Amino acid sequence: MSTIRVPEEVPTPIQDSSRLNQAFQGWGTDEKTIVSILGRRNATQRREIRQVYQQVYKESLIGRLEAELSGDFKNAVILWMLDPPKRDAKLANEVLKMKKKGVDHLKVIIEIACATSPHHLMAVRQIYCSLFDCSLEEDITTYISSPLGKVLVNLVSSYRYDGEVIDMNLAKSEAATLRGTIEKKQLDNEYLVLILSTRNIYQLRATFICYLQTYGNSLYQDIKSCGSSDLASILRAVVWCIDAPEKYFAEVVRASIAGIGTDEDSLTRAIVSRAEIDMMGIRGEYYNANKISLDNAVLDDTSGDYENFLMTLLGTRA
Amino acid sequence: MSTIRVPEEVPTPIQDSSRLNQAFQGWGTDEKTIVSILGRRNATQRREIRQVYQQVYKESLIGRLEAELSGDFKNAVILWMLDPPKRDAKLANEVLKMKKKGVDHLKVIIEIACATSPHHLMAVRQIYCSLFDCSLEEDITTYISSPLGKVLVNLVSSYRYDGEVIDMNLAKSEAATLRGTIEKKQLDNEYLVLILSTRNIYQLRATFICYLQTYGNSLYQDIKSCGSSDLASILRAVVWCIDAPEKYFAEVVRASIAGIGTDEDSLTRAIVSRAEIDMMGIRGEYYNANKISLDNAVLDDTSGDYENFLMTLLGTRA
Repeated sequence: MSTIRVPEEVPTPIQDSSRLNQAFQGWGTDEKTIVSILGRRNATQRREIRQVYQQVYKESLIGRLEAELSGDFKNAVILWMLDPPKRDAKLANEVLKMKKKGVDHLKVIIEIACATSPHHLMAVRQIYCSLFDCSLEEDITTYISSPLGKVLVNLVSSYRYDGEVIDMNLAKSEAATLRGTIEKKQLDNEYLVLILSTRNIYQLRATFICYLQTYGNSLYQDIKSCGSSDLASILRAVVWCIDAPEKYFAEVVRASIAGIGTDEDSLTRAIVSRAEIDMMGIRGEYYNANKISLDNAVLDDTSGDYENFLMTLLGTRA
Repeated sequence: MSTIRVPEEVPTPIQDSSRLNQAFQGWGTDEKTIVSILGRRNATQRREIRQVYQQVYKESLIGRLEAELSGDFKNAVILWMLDPPKRDAKLANEVLKMKKKGVDHLKVIIEIACATSPHHLMAVRQIYCSLFDCSLEEDITTYISSPLGKVLVNLVSSYRYDGEVIDMNLAKSEAATLRGTIEKKQLDNEYLVLILSTRNIYQLRATFICYLQTYGNSLYQDIKSCGSSDLASILRAVVWCIDAPEKYFAEVVRASIAGIGTDEDSLTRAIVSRAEIDMMGIRGEYYNANKISLDNAVLDDTSGDYENFLMTLLGTRA
């Protein structure tokens, strides 16, 4: 469930565009107005505002926001204003082209491949090609060496069946296959990769339950016991994103604000990309795991317009 | 280039539907009228006729054709009347569910994965899920064992960049990678599969040229020298479909009518699925390779309404 609060009576895109244009005028920018409009419109409404703004003011709204805003606030608003598939294509591309990318950065690609709908993933791949003149798979192959690259290619190439069809016999036999490969510590085993990248989400969740019931440990724990290689770390994220995306993103938020300093990129990504999908559930999971509210935790680590924008996406600012 | 001859003044879908409905009435069916209408309409026009026919006569046109026609003629007309992505999804599913499927049958899947547009392949995968309640990749995994199954999953999962972007240095280095795996007869090597399933078609053609220039043999010939395993046979089809689809399909037609008896399923599939894409080129390649015209060869091996329908798709019947 979404946390953004779209007003009951939504202004027309022309009215919104006009108020945005006013917010850009004169000395300084009226950030509060920008947040109160854009932070309370869904993806379709934001797209309409972008289109109408372009028609009326003959300039790109995103370009204007780039010029008017700054810092983490700017980054968050721009990500929020991109169409979701385009946003994810850009995030994936940024991560792949980073000079020093750790395995944590690559989790962005896992999130896109395993915690969004098959239809969304396909749209990301299409727009990736049109933005960057090569396929997402090609860039993964270029920038990430095997076995990690091979596993990522398989995951982003998936187009899982979207229905809730479960075959319990298959779940049992595939739990056994997974266990066999884990016992041999063969994390790049082709069957393991095939199962995780082709089966539908509900089937995989049933397989994970069979695994736990039969072997006493969860698949996640068993992968953890295979060591701390990059591949093990990526596969744990895969299992988590498939099994419990709300818990996974609660942990992304927690890790981004834990300790001294904040990883604003991760915090922004988690809130912007899930606000319209399952942020209500992520909030619940965050409280269960950490015994403080996600909203208070984010408040403690952010400030100013950036804080105001995230809080608006979380639905706690009127 | 297409070979079908759409009339300069196309009747409306209502007029076409009415004439089709008349052709179904009374004693016997007027097959000639059916062929003269449906064999001379493009995919969009056929879809409109289907929709209008359903609205006006409250029955499915395809269902009615199933009931009225028979044999190879019926199969060809039904395949022609399905939307192209749906047709290919059904062909792939039939092949996977065959009890005794030889490697030749599996080439249908290679054709869909390597000799159609990335957009078409994606549409096939989407409709496959909605028709069969599981993904194409899952069915491949279920019915085809590895290494063949793994290679097929990679190929159908591809979404290649659709533009003509070529990097000659990459072509050289990947030609060397391919040569290395071929020399070791490692046809299921992960890099070989990654290259063939992720690179864009123009890039791969450049790689194949580099391969030939550097090593004296074509990649196709070198795979052939690796033996007659199913995997070698499939990979030859992959290289051929990518490098020269018109030559590939000319050979499908030749093989389907060679010797005693005819493989009508393959003949129908080749002509129906390529009539609107590149049948003009296939005809040219057929003549180059066999020194007789494709039309005459097909005429020799077919008869009756089936012959009339194929000839109409080939554009040689007025």
